[in-house]
Amino acid sequence: MIRSLLLTAAAFSLAACAPQSATDAPSKMTDNASSSSQATGFDQTIAVAERKLDVAMRGPLTIPTPKDPGGGYTHETHKANGFMLYDVGQMYKLTGEKKYAEFAGQALLDYAEVYPSYGIHPAKKEQSPGRMFWQNLNESMFLLNISQTYDAIKDTLSDTQKEKIETDLLRNMADFLSVGAPETFNKVHNHGTWATAAVGLTGYAIGDDEYVEQALLGLDKSGTAGFIKQMDVLFSPDGYYNEGPYYHRFALKPFIIFAQAVEKNNPERKIFEKRDGILKTATYSLIHQNYGGLFFPINDAIKEKGIRTDELLNAVAIVYDLTGDTGLLSIAQEQNTFVLTPESRKLSRDLAAGKATPFEYRSMRLGDGQDGTEGALDILRASNDPKGLAAIAKNTSQGLGHGHFDKMGLLVYDAGHEILRDYGAARFLNIEAKFGGHYLPENNKYAKQTVAHNALVVDETSHFNGDVKIGNQHAPKLYGFVNEDGMKLTSAEISTAYDGVRLGRTVAMIEDDAFYGPIIIDLTEAHSESAHSYDLPFHYNGHLIDTNFEVQADPLSRAPLGDKNGYQYLWNVAEADPVDGLSQVTWLLDKKFYSVTSAVPANTKVVFTQIGANDPNFNLKPEPGFILRTRSNDGVSFVSVIEPHGDYNPTAEYTIGSHSAVKSVSHFEGGAAEYILIETKEGQSVGLALGAEDNPDGTHSVDVNGKTITWKGAYKLFNSEKHLSAQ
Amino acid sequence: MIRSLLLTAAAFSLAACAPQSATDAPSKMTDNASSSSQATGFDQTIAVAERKLDVAMRGPLTIPTPKDPGGGYTHETHKANGFMLYDVGQMYKLTGEKKYAEFAGQALLDYAEVYPSYGIHPAKKEQSPGRMFWQNLNESMFLLNISQTYDAIKDTLSDTQKEKIETDLLRNMADFLSVGAPETFNKVHNHGTWATAAVGLTGYAIGDDEYVEQALLGLDKSGTAGFIKQMDVLFSPDGYYNEGPYYHRFALKPFIIFAQAVEKNNPERKIFEKRDGILKTATYSLIHQNYGGLFFPINDAIKEKGIRTDELLNAVAIVYDLTGDTGLLSIAQEQNTFVLTPESRKLSRDLAAGKATPFEYRSMRLGDGQDGTEGALDILRASNDPKGLAAIAKNTSQGLGHGHFDKMGLLVYDAGHEILRDYGAARFLNIEAKFGGHYLPENNKYAKQTVAHNALVVDETSHFNGDVKIGNQHAPKLYGFVNEDGMKLTSAEISTAYDGVRLGRTVAMIEDDAFYGPIIIDLTEAHSESAHSYDLPFHYNGHLIDTNFEVQADPLSRAPLGDKNGYQYLWNVAEADPVDGLSQVTWLLDKKFYSVTSAVPANTKVVFTQIGANDPNFNLKPEPGFILRTRSNDGVSFVSVIEPHGDYNPTAEYTIGSHSAVKSVSHFEGGAAEYILIETKEGQSVGLALGAEDNPDGTHSVDVNGKTITWKGAYKLFNSEKHLSAQ
Repeated sequence: MIRSLLLTAAAFSLAACAPQSATDAPSKMTDNASSSSQATGFDQTIAVAERKLDVAMRGPLTIPTPKDPGGGYTHETHKANGFMLYDVGQMYKLTGEKKYAEFAGQALLDYAEVYPSYGIHPAKKEQSPGRMFWQNLNESMFLLNISQTYDAIKDTLSDTQKEKIETDLLRNMADFLSVGAPETFNKVHNHGTWATAAVGLTGYAIGDDEYVEQALLGLDKSGTAGFIKQMDVLFSPDGYYNEGPYYHRFALKPFIIFAQAVEKNNPERKIFEKRDGILKTATYSLIHQNYGGLFFPINDAIKEKGIRTDELLNAVAIVYDLTGDTGLLSIAQEQNTFVLTPESRKLSRDLAAGKATPFEYRSMRLGDGQDGTEGALDILRASNDPKGLAAIAKNTSQGLGHGHFDKMGLLVYDAGHEILRDYGAARFLNIEAKFGGHYLPENNKYAKQTVAHNALVVDETSHFNGDVKIGNQHAPKLYGFVNEDGMKLTSAEISTAYDGVRLGRTVAMIEDDAFYGPIIIDLTEAHSESAHSYDLPFHYNGHLIDTNFEVQADPLSRAPLGDKNGYQYLWNVAEADPVDGLSQVTWLLDKKFYSVTSAVPANTKVVFTQIGANDPNFNLKPEPGFILRTRSNDGVSFVSVIEPHGDYNPTAEYTIGSHSAVKSVSHFEGGAAEYILIETKEGQSVGLALGAEDNPDGTHSVDVNGKTITWKGAYKLFNSEKHLSAQ
Repeated sequence: MIRSLLLTAAAFSLAACAPQSATDAPSKMTDNASSSSQATGFDQTIAVAERKLDVAMRGPLTIPTPKDPGGGYTHETHKANGFMLYDVGQMYKLTGEKKYAEFAGQALLDYAEVYPSYGIHPAKKEQSPGRMFWQNLNESMFLLNISQTYDAIKDTLSDTQKEKIETDLLRNMADFLSVGAPETFNKVHNHGTWATAAVGLTGYAIGDDEYVEQALLGLDKSGTAGFIKQMDVLFSPDGYYNEGPYYHRFALKPFIIFAQAVEKNNPERKIFEKRDGILKTATYSLIHQNYGGLFFPINDAIKEKGIRTDELLNAVAIVYDLTGDTGLLSIAQEQNTFVLTPESRKLSRDLAAGKATPFEYRSMRLGDGQDGTEGALDILRASNDPKGLAAIAKNTSQGLGHGHFDKMGLLVYDAGHEILRDYGAARFLNIEAKFGGHYLPENNKYAKQTVAHNALVVDETSHFNGDVKIGNQHAPKLYGFVNEDGMKLTSAEISTAYDGVRLGRTVAMIEDDAFYGPIIIDLTEAHSESAHSYDLPFHYNGHLIDTNFEVQADPLSRAPLGDKNGYQYLWNVAEADPVDGLSQVTWLLDKKFYSVTSAVPANTKVVFTQIGANDPNFNLKPEPGFILRTRSNDGVSFVSVIEPHGDYNPTAEYTIGSHSAVKSVSHFEGGAAEYILIETKEGQSVGLALGAEDNPDGTHSVDVNGKTITWKGAYKLFNSEKHLSAQ
C-alpha cells in the first residue's frame, strides 16, 4: 500500500516535471538544447499530466482519517491529494474538459463531508498543530492547492454544492488557519506567508473580501502583520532571503502565487510594484544564486536543489508574464521543465519562438537583513557566462537555525563545477535508511561547523563558539564592493566571531594577460593581540596533482584531526611544510587544473584532510581538503591566488598548462594600506593595492621590495604591463 | 618556448575537435541535441581549422634537428608539424584555396632539404629506432600524415619540386620504414600496421606500386606479412582486439585510413570485404564497447577515452560512407565532432538532414583471439537504450602486457553511469607532475591486480600469480551465451588462474515484474578440493545507504587490508557479518539506488574498503568497495542479485523505492544442475535454472525447498507468475 501511495505521490509531482528529461539536473549542454524540443515542452507537460490523471481519476479519491505524522500514510495521502487536485483544476482551466471538473467537484465535496469532523491531529506537533496534518503548515499548503482548484471549477457546480464546499471545507479550513491560529497567521515568517496566501486565495475563490483583507493586512487588518508586512520584512531590499537560497526557494512560492492572484483580482493594489517590486527582485535574486543550475549550497542546503524546482518554475513564468524579460527565457531553457499554468505555456511558446536572450548573470552584492544592513552575499562573476569563473563570499548574517558558522566563507566555481566547495547539509532527503531522511547528527556536528567551510578558524573553534543565538546577533561589517571590467572585489570583516580577534577577508577576481584566464586573489586576515592558532581550510574538488613542497600521505594509518568542532570528522592524511613561506597546491578536475598559491607565515603547516573519521554509519562524503595552519601572537594573514589553468585533454591526448603560472605571492603592508604582489614564472608582475578602508578616496603608498608604490583610492589593480611604470 | 609549442600542438589537435563543445565528454543530452547545431558541425570544424591555420601559417615551419625523446621539444614539434601538414593538405582538398597548397609544398621541400641528413635518432629507443623521432612508430605516424598531404597538393608542384620531395623525403622515409626496418614492417603487430599503412599511402601518393605491394603483402610480397596478414590476425572474427578497446582504438586508425586508400586506388582488391568485412566489423565492435560515450575501461585504459577520439571519428565517417548505415549517424551525433575529410562532411550533412536512426546497441559475445576461440568479451544490454542497464563479463584472454588479471571480471552500468566499476589504468596521461604522465607504479601494483576488479580472488593472490606470460597462455572456457527477450546470459570458467581451483561465473540479466526493472544475477563459483580463502570484491560507485546487517566503520583509525597483490592499497574500513547467509548492500548514485543481495556461505564476512592506503603520492582515487570474504575446504559459491531500483528526486522532494525488492536469494544444487531462487518482499518468487553445461539439451531437476523443479535445456528463467506452477 505504501509503495503504491508513494508512486501516486510521485506521479503527481512528475506531472510538473519535464517528461523528456532523464535526469533532474538541468542540461549541461545549453548550447545544444534545440528549439524544437523546447517547442513542445509545455505540450509534453500537458500530455504527461493527462496520462497520469487518467489513471488516477479511475476511482474516487482516497480520504483517510488523519492519523500519521509527516511521512506516514495519511499524511502523504492528503498531501498527494492536494497536489493532484491542483493539477486537476489546472487541467480543467487549460483544456476545458469536463471530466476534470467533475472529478475535482466530487473530491471537494468528499472532503467537505469529512473535514468538519476532524479535530486537532492526533500526532500534532506542539507548536501550530493542524487537523488534517500534524502541523498547520501542511494544512496551509493543502488549502493553497485546493482553493485554486475550487476557483478553477466552481462555475461547474450547483449552488448547493458550492455552499457545501465553501462552508464545510474552504471556510472551515481558512478559519482554522486564520482566527483559529493567530500566532502563525500573524507571524512574520514563511509559515505565516503560507497561511496568509492560502486564506487569501480562498477569499478570492469564494468571493469573500474579508479573508483577502485579513491575509494582506493581518487579522486586525492594521497592516502590522499579514502578507504585505511579510513582503516588507522577509526579504532584504536586494531580494536576499535571510536563510539563504535553499529556504528562499521554499518561501517564494506562496508569495508569488498569492501575489499573482492579488494582481489579477485587485490590480489597483499594484502588489508587484510594492517595495520597488520586491517579489520580482526576490525572484531574480534567487536566480542569481545558482551556478550550473544548482543553488549556492550555503547554510543547510540539499545540494541537488536548483532552478528546476517547482517554486522557481512558477516564479519564472509569472515574472516573465509581468516583465517580458526575455533573459528569463534562457532560465526557462535551462529549467527545461514546465508547469500547468497559462504563464508557463506562454514561457514555453516564446522560448520555442526563439525569443530567448542570455540571462545577464553579473557580479552583485545582495545585502542581507530587512534593511539590507546585516552583511551581504557577495557574488563575483568573471562574465555573464553561467559556466565561467565565479566566487561567492558569504558575508551574510547567520541565517537563523539553519545557518552555518562560516563568516566570510568562500565558494569558487569554474567550468560548470564546484572548485572550492561548501559541504551543504549532511542529510539524505527523504531516504528513510539515513536517519529517516532528516538532518543527520553530522549536520550540526560537522556540516555547520566552521572547519567544514572555506573560512578562517581560530583556536580550532567555530565562529560564535557554534552558538546560533549569538551568531544571529552579529553580521560582518561590509567594506568595498567593486564591479569593474577586469576587477571584481569584495571586502568585509567581523570582530564578534571570536573574542579578541577581528577577522577580515578581501576577495578579488582579476584579469591579466599574465594568466591563463581570470584568477581570484584571497586575502584572509586576523587581527589580534593575543596568541591563537589559525586554520584556513580549502575544501577542493578534484584530484591532487602537484605541490611545491614535499608531502607524503601516511601509508599505513589515519587518525582524526581533532576531537570536537567538526575536526573529529576529518582524517589527518598528511602534513607538510611550505617552501620559503609559499604553499602551492594543484589539483585536476574534469579537464582543467586549479592551483592555490599562498603566501603564508613562516611556521605554517599544510594539513591534507579527507572527510570520514568518526563516521561509523557512512553518513559523510569522503571529500578532500587542505588546511593552512599556523600559530601567532599577533594575528595572521594568508594571501592566496586561486588560479584555473591549462587543459587536460585525454581524448586528443594533449595536456597544456598543467603548471601554475604563479611563481610567488607576497604581501606588503604600509600602515593600513596593503599591496599584494604576484610574480609569474614568465617574469611578469601583477599587483593588487588595498587602501585604508577608512580613507577610500585618499592617496596610499606601500614600500614594495624597496620601491614605493603609490595609488589613489581604496582598491587598485596594477596589471602586468603597468606594474613597472607604477613604481 | 615549450608553452607556445604545446599551444601549437593543441591547436592542431583542436582543429579536429568540435568547436562548439565545451567539454570532451560526449553529450549527455542526446535527446536534446538539436539538428540545427549538428547542421553546422562540419562547417564549424572547417572554420576553426581556417582560423588556427591562418595563425600557424604566418611564418615558415620550424624544423628542429632531432634531439629529444618523446615529450621533448624536437619530438613534439615534428609531431605537431605532421598533424598540421595533414590538416593543411585536407584544407586544400576541401576548399581549393592556394595558400594551403603553397604552405604545404614549401614545408615538404623544407623537410626534404634536411631529412637525408638525419641519421639514427640520438635518443633512439633500443628496439626500432627512428631518425626524426626516437622510435620509428612516430616516424610511421608522421609519414602517414605527410604522404596524404603530398597526395592532396602534388598537382600544384613543379616537376623539380615533386622530384625533390619524393626522393629526399617520401621515398627516403618509406625506405627507412620498410627495407630499412624489416623487423617492424613485417611484424604482425599494430606498429607494423602503422608502418605498412604509411609506406602504402606513400606508394599511392607518388604512384609507385612497389611500395603498395610491399605494404599489403610484406617485403617479399608473399603475403606472410604485411597489411592483409595483419587484418587476418590482429582482430578476432568478431572484430575484438586482443588488448581491449583502449588499444583497439589506437590500432584502428592506420587500418581504416590505408584501407580507404586501397579501396579508392584498387577497388578490385575489395579490401573492405576481406575476411567478411573485418575492418567494418572491427569498427562496429569498438562502438559496441562503449557506454555513455566512453570505452569499457578493461585492461590498461584511460577512462576518459571514448567514441569522440580522432581514430573513431575517421572510422565512423569512412564506414558510413561505405555502408550508408544510418545507425552510425546516431554515433556521429553523440560524437558531435567532425574531422577534415569529405566522409566526415557527408556524415555531418546527412545528420543535419535528419537521416539518423538509433544505433542498435545489443547484447553480444565478441570472441577473442585470431580464430575467436580464446575467450570472449560478453556484453549484456537490457535494451538498445545506450543509457540502459548493461553488464560486461570479461571472459577474454589476458590481452598481452597491458592486460589486467581479472578473469571473468564484471562491469555494470546503468542510467548513464558506471555502477560496478573497473579502476582502469593508474595513470594521468601526459601530466608531467604525475610520473611524467606515464603509467604510475600503482598501475602494476594495484590497477592490474585481481582485487582491483570485480573478480574472484583466491588466497589473496592475483590470477596467474600476476604473471603476464602465464596469463597469455590461458583463456576462459566459454559456456552458453543467451540473448532472448527477458533473459541475457553468459557463462564461463577457467581452471588455470589458480592451481587446483576452477573458477566459474554465470551472469544473467533478467526481467520480471517482481522488480523495478531488469536485474542481474551473478553466480560466482570456485571448485576445489583443498582449503582456500575467497574474496569477491564489488567496486561500487555511489554512497552507501543501507545494509541488512550491522556495520560500523572504525571511527578512529584505518589500516591497509593486506600487504601485497594490490591489497596494500585498500583501507579496511569496516568488517561485518551477514545475517543468516544473506548480505544486502544498498548505495545511491545520482538519482537511483542499487542493491547487491548475496547468498553467501555461513562464515562470510563483508569487508568495506576504500582505495588509498600505501599511496604517499596521492596517486589513487579514493573509491569505495566491499568484499564478500570467506574460507572453505571445498570451493565456494556466491550468488548475488544486482538490482537498480527506486527514484531519489530531491528537486521534487520525493523518494520512492529506496529499499531493495529482494527478500532472499538461495542457491540449490542437484548434481551438476543448479537453481537460484529469488524471493521478493512482496511474496513473489523468481527462479533461474542452470542445467549441466555438458548436457545443454537434457532434462534437469533440482530439489528446491522440498519440491522438485524440472526443466529442459541449459538455462531457464522461471518468471514470478510461472514459478509456482512449475513446481
